Amino acid sequence: MKGYAMLKIGETGWIEKERPACGPNDAIVKPLALSPCTSDIHTVWEGALGDRHNMILGHEGCGEVVEVGSAVKDFKKGDRILVAAITPDWMSVEAQAGYPMHSGGMLAGWKFSNFKDGVFGEYFHVNDADGNLAHLPSNISVEEACMLSDMVPTGFHGVELANIKFGETVLVVGIGPVGLMAVAGANLRGASRIIVVGSRPGTIEVAKKYGATDAISYKDGPIDQQVLEMTGGKGVDKAIIAGGGVDTFEPVVKVLKPGGTIGNVNYLGSGTYIQIPRVEWGVGMGHKTITGGLMPGGRDRLEKLASLISVGKLDVSLLLTHRFKGFEKVEDALFLMKDKPADLIKPVVTL
Amino acid sequence: MKGYAMLKIGETGWIEKERPACGPNDAIVKPLALSPCTSDIHTVWEGALGDRHNMILGHEGCGEVVEVGSAVKDFKKGDRILVAAITPDWMSVEAQAGYPMHSGGMLAGWKFSNFKDGVFGEYFHVNDADGNLAHLPSNISVEEACMLSDMVPTGFHGVELANIKFGETVLVVGIGPVGLMAVAGANLRGASRIIVVGSRPGTIEVAKKYGATDAISYKDGPIDQQVLEMTGGKGVDKAIIAGGGVDTFEPVVKVLKPGGTIGNVNYLGSGTYIQIPRVEWGVGMGHKTITGGLMPGGRDRLEKLASLISVGKLDVSLLLTHRFKGFEKVEDALFLMKDKPADLIKPVVTL
Amino acid sequence: MKGYAMLKIGETGWIEKERPACGPNDAIVKPLALSPCTSDIHTVWEGALGDRHNMILGHEGCGEVVEVGSAVKDFKKGDRILVAAITPDWMSVEAQAGYPMHSGGMLAGWKFSNFKDGVFGEYFHVNDADGNLAHLPSNISVEEACMLSDMVPTGFHGVELANIKFGETVLVVGIGPVGLMAVAGANLRGASRIIVVGSRPGTIEVAKKYGATDAISYKDGPIDQQVLEMTGGKGVDKAIIAGGGVDTFEPVVKVLKPGGTIGNVNYLGSGTYIQIPRVEWGVGMGHKTITGGLMPGGRDRLEKLASLISVGKLDVSLLLTHRFKGFEKVEDALFLMKDKPADLIKPVVTL
Amino acid sequence: MKGYAMLKIGETGWIEKERPACGPNDAIVKPLALSPCTSDIHTVWEGALGDRHNMILGHEGCGEVVEVGSAVKDFKKGDRILVAAITPDWMSVEAQAGYPMHSGGMLAGWKFSNFKDGVFGEYFHVNDADGNLAHLPSNISVEEACMLSDMVPTGFHGVELANIKFGETVLVVGIGPVGLMAVAGANLRGASRIIVVGSRPGTIEVAKKYGATDAISYKDGPIDQQVLEMTGGKGVDKAIIAGGGVDTFEPVVKVLKPGGTIGNVNYLGSGTYIQIPRVEWGVGMGHKTITGGLMPGGRDRLEKLASLISVGKLDVSLLLTHRFKGFEKVEDALFLMKDKPADLIKPVVTL
Repeated sequence: MKGYAMLKIGETGWIEKERPACGPNDAIVKPLALSPCTSDIHTVWEGALGDRHNMILGHEGCGEVVEVGSAVKDFKKGDRILVAAITPDWMSVEAQAGYPMHSGGMLAGWKFSNFKDGVFGEYFHVNDADGNLAHLPSNISVEEACMLSDMVPTGFHGVELANIKFGETVLVVGIGPVGLMAVAGANLRGASRIIVVGSRPGTIEVAKKYGATDAISYKDGPIDQQVLEMTGGKGVDKAIIAGGGVDTFEPVVKVLKPGGTIGNVNYLGSGTYIQIPRVEWGVGMGHKTITGGLMPGGRDRLEKLASLISVGKLDVSLLLTHRFKGFEKVEDALFLMKDKPADLIKPVVTL
Repeated sequence: MKGYAMLKIGETGWIEKERPACGPNDAIVKPLALSPCTSDIHTVWEGALGDRHNMILGHEGCGEVVEVGSAVKDFKKGDRILVAAITPDWMSVEAQAGYPMHSGGMLAGWKFSNFKDGVFGEYFHVNDADGNLAHLPSNISVEEACMLSDMVPTGFHGVELANIKFGETVLVVGIGPVGLMAVAGANLRGASRIIVVGSRPGTIEVAKKYGATDAISYKDGPIDQQVLEMTGGKGVDKAIIAGGGVDTFEPVVKVLKPGGTIGNVNYLGSGTYIQIPRVEWGVGMGHKTITGGLMPGGRDRLEKLASLISVGKLDVSLLLTHRFKGFEKVEDALFLMKDKPADLIKPVVTL
Repeated sequence: MKGYAMLKIGETGWIEKERPACGPNDAIVKPLALSPCTSDIHTVWEGALGDRHNMILGHEGCGEVVEVGSAVKDFKKGDRILVAAITPDWMSVEAQAGYPMHSGGMLAGWKFSNFKDGVFGEYFHVNDADGNLAHLPSNISVEEACMLSDMVPTGFHGVELANIKFGETVLVVGIGPVGLMAVAGANLRGASRIIVVGSRPGTIEVAKKYGATDAISYKDGPIDQQVLEMTGGKGVDKAIIAGGGVDTFEPVVKVLKPGGTIGNVNYLGSGTYIQIPRVEWGVGMGHKTITGGLMPGGRDRLEKLASLISVGKLDVSLLLTHRFKGFEKVEDALFLMKDKPADLIKPVVTL
Repeated sequence: MKGYAMLKIGETGWIEKERPACGPNDAIVKPLALSPCTSDIHTVWEGALGDRHNMILGHEGCGEVVEVGSAVKDFKKGDRILVAAITPDWMSVEAQAGYPMHSGGMLAGWKFSNFKDGVFGEYFHVNDADGNLAHLPSNISVEEACMLSDMVPTGFHGVELANIKFGETVLVVGIGPVGLMAVAGANLRGASRIIVVGSRPGTIEVAKKYGATDAISYKDGPIDQQVLEMTGGKGVDKAIIAGGGVDTFEPVVKVLKPGGTIGNVNYLGSGTYIQIPRVEWGVGMGHKTITGGLMPGGRDRLEKLASLISVGKLDVSLLLTHRFKGFEKVEDALFLMKDKPADLIKPVVTL
């Protein structure tokens, strides 16, 4: 079969591979729509995961089942399915303890285009199919379905990590597609004021449609100063970090109220230390909780998040700024993601 | 001063009383707007709290501070304020343990028109003023402010008790004003499908504006049968009870999934037992949690819930179906609440 | 192979069956020690699960792996293992949502001697072996290991359900072996005063060794009156129900403080309704949470609970009052459990 | 009245001051026993709180009430009382939101020998007396009572922050008196293996009495290497930091399992940043939660923690290595704390 792959660090191309084999708990899926992710860019051009050779890229997509293993009960050939970027081993102790994304080791629930071929192939392989697939609801398009692989569950996980309560003021740093879903999620979780940090006017407009009430830009000065000014010196109850780097935590800790939580869902690609400012962290005793986590995967979560789209309470179509048709356009979509034109949020390719 | 009071069970009228005295932690407030509550009806005509004589009624309103005690720091004469129906003693062990509404004994945080005169007087008394008042935001009307005394915090507490998560299916039983706020709160908390039980078409329409996706009526058969049918036999993830009686729990337990929670915010006025069906409760082992609680009061909560109105994410004006002008109209508003015409949700009186 | 079975309601005996087949995720285990449970008695002589024919009994035991399926990674022939009474399907949506014991339907994680043959055979079958087995630590005896199947995890789950915090006063109703483990668990969870309800002097003595500070008996009057007297009218912070019936909840609700929780782990075998007294339940608003649940199973939990025995912080040997040697003694052990002599806590059979 | 005070940074001495005035919610207390704390040393000799002049030191003690304000209900002259080092304003929004220790600003619940005179005077002042005092149980000595001011509640708060569950492996860094109480608390919370980091043999012996199972020393190599070795490379489930500095977090993050939590209760006196290692923190996505907080104060907590001593489940006497008699010995006790002889855990002075 054909697949679009990372050939080595800095180089991509089409390759031929054997169609993956189907173990007793597995499914083999033919993609219906695919979407590249910033992580694919990090993987190829920054070597974020280390070197990889001839590894098929991609972890966002939906598809149709073409084969299932002997132990799979709930899915069969022909089923149209959702699948998340993270596909845990559900029998692991880590999944049992509530951390499926770390099944088999920290971050090891992330398998697509990391430990095995990704979804940018004519076929792709899904482990623990009963646990990792969900049926695609009939009123969700295949393009929208792709947003359920990573953008929605990751952004919403930021909201979960930040433990948002009714009427809280929330800071969202970074409003790429994950940050936008963090805004939508915070809004759906009962936040009142949502302050976003971003600079592209088009994206800020989308953020406001998703529930942002205020927007600030790094270009207008230190973000902690801006946030303290606009909150009368009080700061924010909770924060979600969906962009930036190891330096981003410093201003966020500075504006976080005691008792607040930072939920990070941003991949931190460089730097030795995340720097937490000692004094503003209450000399160790300010109850400013700092956490961050890879999104959980799994069928239950896919079904629940999909239902928000099905009933019309979440509109992911605002993310889909660029649409392509045909498998071979995966390459163009990936390079678009690499080039990041000003009007891009997410590209999607239907097959 | 003048006040509208319960004279005895079944009888109300205007009375004269001394203006309440102001202790060191107290505030004396002159109402700006008032709203009667179904509880006032229960109190007077059903004797729900036992007999009371010449007790000024009312626990929903907002006002202007006319006096504060020597230990009050954050409020002063002339401040326009919000106040909740529940006004806890914040130094109590119960408040410290997270249950301020039970400070001094079960339900004893409910003081207005229960253990002391209510708000339907020319002046009313607020204990622990720094803890129980909040400043009225300038963009919230006095009528809307009344909804923050009880309807919003009680409905939203049902949502908190039911512990709703993203994408869950939620059943809301009873769509009086508290039930409607439970719907709005569940929607703001990320529920996808919200099934309401009610029969008045106008109210159902309002429920849908607040986020209800489905409506069923007792008149069309047992509600458990209807819910199971519309969910393909799966039932609901969570339930909020905001109406009915001790019998209401049976069908709700029957449709609740294992791992689900029932949050009750309905005053149960009669019956010896809440009846939990043994078999559908999993013979004791179904993880179907049943809880219920009086809303918390307090300044922090008032500020946070008010902020949802201030930023435009919660519109309480849909509740305000009947408006009166003038203190003396409190009587008409109360009798309207007693008579419950079909188009009534909440009456409000501005002074 | 040979197995000791329920032949029909009210009748047991030895039968011959095919050795169970081993699917790709399964293990076949030869028992090393076995213990009958009160549930076995309910199953056979009360028909608690409905009729069953020629079903091998038993769900408490440990053993040695004799065969594993092709997809099993962490266990192999010859491994000595722990296994819990509850063996969930770990890929199910219920397990993903945190309720593995209800995978495939309410209580359906309970498979042994319920939906399939139990452990009282020459061999028994374990589904999802990587998720449901744990390695038996070398310093835990096979007799002790049997207590990790049900008594420890069920008693400790009562503690988890009751959400006990440092210094709380806890009521434990019923001090059979599960209740004793609830006492041990509450003690290990930081409860201060632990009041047990029981009447057998020997068992009360064991309860005190496990951390009970006070004991009362039904024989000395209504338990709610006794508890209120001994707590100066304040009642208890939390309660665990490990015995009694649907009537047991009434006195417990009466002594529970607002904000308290009842965690039930007792199988409720008869009665139409669990009766929650309306007034003492705060007319629906007392924040007295009532929950109950089948224990979770799984390798992570088995490993963690076993580690308490390994390091010497939990001594289950106090439960083991009657010891038998030889597979054929399973019958005697079961009948001992049925007859319940005064000095019995748990019988165990080594093979 | 007389008091032992910080005269300026680096200098202490006896001073004369007015007896504090008693506001409506206040109590004036005459100490019965007092204990100096390492924080007193930091305050005086490191200037940790900035400069202070003629401020009476001390925040650990118990006493007898000599006067109460007009609004105080539950305490009266002559009552023997417990009081915590942290005395929050219970009507504040921060207390209502669950963070009383930050009432009025981050860490501002810490008033004694910080914003006002401490307890090392002939009399001391307690704000919000109904919320901040507790009755001293008759079977707790005044020396033991001093341990309830700070050592027990701070150590136990580390356990609460780390969110310990049954059977977990816990690392406790630092085994001064707070660390020892963190060990005792972790043990009372159901941890199985407790690994302590310390080097003084006598203290390690005490740690083992409190439940530590393993001890390692900085002197034997990097602590992360030692912990990984002794856990077979798996690391620990949770960690409590009760000693060290901003560098201590690095090895702890390295040995913490994904899904784990670090609870810090150590005052971090110097360094610009707490350094969280990026890679071992899962490049931002490892679900390794880092939190830290000042202990909560309050009557409810004092009563609950005291009850553990009353019923014999917590023995604080192991901490009391040096005992003095007479108010004037406060000076000797403080200098002993400054000099830290090898056999010192805590000195206590009875009056």
